[in-house]
Amino acid sequence: MDAKIASPVVDCLQYANWSADVFAQMRAGGVHGVHATIAYHENFRETVANIIAWNRHFERHSDLIFPGRAGSDIERAMREGRTAIFFGLQNPSPIEDDIGLIEVCHALGVRFMQLSYNNQSLLATGCYEGEDPGITRFGRQAIAEMNRVGMVVDMSHSAERSTLEAIELSARPIAITHANPHWWHPALRNKSDTVLKALTRSGGMLGLSLYPHHMKGGSNCTLQSFCAMVAETASRYGVAHLGIGSDLCQDQPDSVVAWMRNGRWSKVTDYGEGSASAAGFPRQPSWFTSNADLGNLRDGLCKVGFSNEEVSDIMGGNWLRFYTQSFGPM
Amino acid sequence: MDAKIASPVVDCLQYANWSADVFAQMRAGGVHGVHATIAYHENFRETVANIIAWNRHFERHSDLIFPGRAGSDIERAMREGRTAIFFGLQNPSPIEDDIGLIEVCHALGVRFMQLSYNNQSLLATGCYEGEDPGITRFGRQAIAEMNRVGMVVDMSHSAERSTLEAIELSARPIAITHANPHWWHPALRNKSDTVLKALTRSGGMLGLSLYPHHMKGGSNCTLQSFCAMVAETASRYGVAHLGIGSDLCQDQPDSVVAWMRNGRWSKVTDYGEGSASAAGFPRQPSWFTSNADLGNLRDGLCKVGFSNEEVSDIMGGNWLRFYTQSFGPM
Repeated sequence: MDAKIASPVVDCLQYANWSADVFAQMRAGGVHGVHATIAYHENFRETVANIIAWNRHFERHSDLIFPGRAGSDIERAMREGRTAIFFGLQNPSPIEDDIGLIEVCHALGVRFMQLSYNNQSLLATGCYEGEDPGITRFGRQAIAEMNRVGMVVDMSHSAERSTLEAIELSARPIAITHANPHWWHPALRNKSDTVLKALTRSGGMLGLSLYPHHMKGGSNCTLQSFCAMVAETASRYGVAHLGIGSDLCQDQPDSVVAWMRNGRWSKVTDYGEGSASAAGFPRQPSWFTSNADLGNLRDGLCKVGFSNEEVSDIMGGNWLRFYTQSFGPM
Repeated sequence: MDAKIASPVVDCLQYANWSADVFAQMRAGGVHGVHATIAYHENFRETVANIIAWNRHFERHSDLIFPGRAGSDIERAMREGRTAIFFGLQNPSPIEDDIGLIEVCHALGVRFMQLSYNNQSLLATGCYEGEDPGITRFGRQAIAEMNRVGMVVDMSHSAERSTLEAIELSARPIAITHANPHWWHPALRNKSDTVLKALTRSGGMLGLSLYPHHMKGGSNCTLQSFCAMVAETASRYGVAHLGIGSDLCQDQPDSVVAWMRNGRWSKVTDYGEGSASAAGFPRQPSWFTSNADLGNLRDGLCKVGFSNEEVSDIMGGNWLRFYTQSFGPM
């Protein structure tokens, strides 16, 4: 039996400049499921336009990809040699001020929503704010509604208190789809030991990020360093709570990272994790530049002492279990 | 076996002032499926607001109703003693000028769309226009897209040429969900023999209307007269192509019929099938005032000589077959 068929491979966060080339790389990398961001700052109608663009991808490239809706779609992808695409929102802007849009977005395929991006949202606080007053009145209701319909609360870009409160308030396990431990690399976007303990003790999942700003050494981070971090993370919180959320932003022009950071809210340029002298997307490490490189990660995890079963769980088995438990009605 | 369980009952057009009372009447009438209008002149975002209102109905009244998506939901309704609600649009206004919104609306549960209401639309001509240039360029593409995703082309309010062209252009059988034969009652909204022949020869369905303006004798139309018309219609076009599409607008204030007729397009009051002296909704005939009265219709059809099997086909069996064939991808 082909190893690619034997165990699922899932990347729980990407935002590529989607194309036939990227979809072909997903197949080359044996990736069965990808959580694809479809909105950063878009309102509802703009998000629907992005979904329509995805529907055209699904129609044109049905040999490579199909819409992912349930955990079983990962297994279908394994059988059919295709990749299931699961939609996610990095900001609650698509639901505007309307709790009814959560169920509508779910019907359109959205399976993850961050309660905040870097700024304060209507629901929660982002990690770049100076103050974090925690989950808002609307946020509490939104969490309950997301729980009801089967949309995962994602706190990847949220601030500490909001994140801890979301973990507490959510009746279902939540996810941090793309971040690393702050103790490995103290970036603003990486997560404290307190958060990671609360997340994993409540059954939540951490998607480990391969975005240079989240990694020790940045673009020069070695595969060995990354995998040693994964081993330490597994020993602290349990291997069952770990997956990949690469944050791969492949083939994107730098205007896209400017949009991510500034949306329509800023009249002065915000450089986020970058700087005025390095405003664009950082260079990916040589061992992870596309979906086709996910095999490198598997090899690296084997070398730091994980068993084959543990590697398979981190590469996708844990996400498969989480997706299966998370995307249906409560 | 309870007769209500033995054969499906489907009403393929209603626009009630939806309430717990109306849903309870659906159960009292043993109605398993209702095609409910969710938009007359609404744009996309307004239609989504209407869907959100329906989602609240589904949540609050889950003992009585549930969202209908496939023909098999009629059978589920029969098993569970509930009513499946199928969404439809009386105008293409919800897809605006965006062909991608057809698939989006389908994902949100829309299973029928009229290509035009009474006026010219971007897709086709309505039955109140003086000229009918036929299906437009956008209309041809919309029909193909509706065929692809499984949304039924409904020409109930469309003009003659547009209707004949839609029948010809559609790769799947279409429907006239709510109208009667023009030879029985020569109302503008009723359909010519030419249309009914083309419709039924191509496998399409006619939903017979119980709206007074579509009936001989109007509000005083007798059950016997209506059922005799059904018998003649069956003898001309075949019983397999007939169902009910009552056009029941129960508990609606007259402001709603004014909205149907005038939308936002008219600065002077258009009375449609009514008149200045009778501007409101017409009175329903005494034998059909709510969903609870559908049993009367069954009795009336038996009395004009239909077999039990034929009555069951007209009351819902034919719609069940049509729904099963029509709502999935091509």
